[in-house]
Amino acid sequence: MAKGTILSIDAMGGDAAPGVVVDGLAALLADRADISVLLHGNEPVLAPLVAAQKALAGRCQIIHSDTVITSDMKPSQALRRGKGSSMWNAVEAVKNGEAGAAVSAGNTGALMAISMLILRKMEGVHRPAMTALWPTLRGRTVVLDVGANLEADAAQLVTFAIMGEAYARAALGIAKPTIGILNIGSEEMKGHDEVREAHEWLRAAKLDIDYRGFVEGDDISKGAVDVVVTDGFTGNVALKAGEGVARMLGSRMREALTASLMTKIGAALAMAGLKTLRSQMDPSNVNGGVLLGLGGVSVKSHGGTDARGFARACELAADLASSHYRDEILANLARIREGGLAAE
Amino acid sequence: MAKGTILSIDAMGGDAAPGVVVDGLAALLADRADISVLLHGNEPVLAPLVAAQKALAGRCQIIHSDTVITSDMKPSQALRRGKGSSMWNAVEAVKNGEAGAAVSAGNTGALMAISMLILRKMEGVHRPAMTALWPTLRGRTVVLDVGANLEADAAQLVTFAIMGEAYARAALGIAKPTIGILNIGSEEMKGHDEVREAHEWLRAAKLDIDYRGFVEGDDISKGAVDVVVTDGFTGNVALKAGEGVARMLGSRMREALTASLMTKIGAALAMAGLKTLRSQMDPSNVNGGVLLGLGGVSVKSHGGTDARGFARACELAADLASSHYRDEILANLARIREGGLAAE
Repeated sequence: MAKGTILSIDAMGGDAAPGVVVDGLAALLADRADISVLLHGNEPVLAPLVAAQKALAGRCQIIHSDTVITSDMKPSQALRRGKGSSMWNAVEAVKNGEAGAAVSAGNTGALMAISMLILRKMEGVHRPAMTALWPTLRGRTVVLDVGANLEADAAQLVTFAIMGEAYARAALGIAKPTIGILNIGSEEMKGHDEVREAHEWLRAAKLDIDYRGFVEGDDISKGAVDVVVTDGFTGNVALKAGEGVARMLGSRMREALTASLMTKIGAALAMAGLKTLRSQMDPSNVNGGVLLGLGGVSVKSHGGTDARGFARACELAADLASSHYRDEILANLARIREGGLAAE
Repeated sequence: MAKGTILSIDAMGGDAAPGVVVDGLAALLADRADISVLLHGNEPVLAPLVAAQKALAGRCQIIHSDTVITSDMKPSQALRRGKGSSMWNAVEAVKNGEAGAAVSAGNTGALMAISMLILRKMEGVHRPAMTALWPTLRGRTVVLDVGANLEADAAQLVTFAIMGEAYARAALGIAKPTIGILNIGSEEMKGHDEVREAHEWLRAAKLDIDYRGFVEGDDISKGAVDVVVTDGFTGNVALKAGEGVARMLGSRMREALTASLMTKIGAALAMAGLKTLRSQMDPSNVNGGVLLGLGGVSVKSHGGTDARGFARACELAADLASSHYRDEILANLARIREGGLAAE
């Protein structure tokens, strides 16, 4: 195997696995000479797919596994019956130090449960949080938690802020990410107790982070801050509500531009612009959710992604594997404890 | 004054008041012979504006008020100092039976507080809820609560479902609106206690409503159900997050279509389609938030709306004033109590 970053890939997870997975890896490795791959899955199926890709020659080791975590398995079932599956083995390779990060496009709940069991939580983190990269007018914003937990108390929100900050630096390359806590705007009742308390903590604590205060739902797409902190219920609803609006508008736009011969001709002429728009809005450009707060990197690719989207999730995993984000999180968590603000 | 529905209008609230208000009323009354207006505000300012509009002749009575609730006033200040203001008087006319509904584009928190104080809560409703009309692939969906309360227990969510159902029938003309409770999709931890309990109640209760179960954030824009029930924090974040995505996409689309001469020509040819799209997505087409659960109708128009948007909010107010939605709510609340499920 080549030197550099080694990724541990679940080849069998996702709607179009393993084809999309192997295609995505081939595209990625053609670009990135510093990455090599451990590919977990059904060897007889994978071998010809890998052999067909020049870019993978000598840089992709297939590791056979007999079983697969299916998309309808509950997390508890995955924990009981998942040992030896491609997903399990992919995560275990990170634990064993054979790879710097794991990537799977499979069952989200199962990946969270298996990653949590195998990689364990980082010291000082009680509740890992799921991240999303949200496309904005200024680039991308990290939103967390988007569903790893149903609720979050003030101490957990503070931990999310610290984790999201280090993650934004590693994943987006922003030297000093700005942070906001998601709240609603009405006067005189500024948020839940949890949200107000976390706000006071982040203001008082001597952390090396750029906390900007409260933001509202519409500030996310504006890119008002680089990291938006919220509980998993609110974050999940906001993310899916936003995705729903984007899909609805995309569908309305197609209808509008194909309504008549004239609009069709216009749309054809405007195609270059519309293609730019589509690529800006393409979910595969921002693919990759990370469960932060674990003792190793585990990245969830969207199950319905294409090869390019899968490559993006792998690139994100490689960036995280080669960054110091976990040390930065640990340092800020220690500052919190020294400041007497720890509550978890 | 003419017979039919009488609306009580705060002429002084909103970014472009009173011009946009008077223009909106003129457009509305030209269409609707059944509506007449009590117009509350500064008489010397309003008189020439009203006189200039033929459609308002004999159907718009100006009622002078000396003071105005400003947009930066806190709800508590508005309650202390608001008496005699145009907003206060507009709501009081509903209380006194002089009008069927009040409309204001002014300070939201103040309107909520003043409406709550003057109109009081309906019997059986502990927490009124703010509604939004969310544009979907199938039409519009009622979302509530979008910010009147920070939290909601199970009994309140059940009340929101009952109120939203009657409101959807009155506001959208849907004979038998379908209802869902907003939740997140992860298995094995289906939602907060509050959400699960409300779900069980709505399934068990013998209500005359079409409850469909849980929906997720992306189901809102799909129009999966006609009424989406959630707490005020989550609803407010979801609504604003969705608005943010829509604005970002609108801005990206403008950029994309004006990027080159070719795309500009294309956009010009496709203009008919793009105009349809814009009108479908135009917030003024779905303007009007209602605080449900009061002893009278009080409608909030968006502060930045244009005349057409203000007319829409007034039309909504008139529809509500002439409907039986409050009786329907009372009947279902009584069924809940008879079923032994009351908890508020």
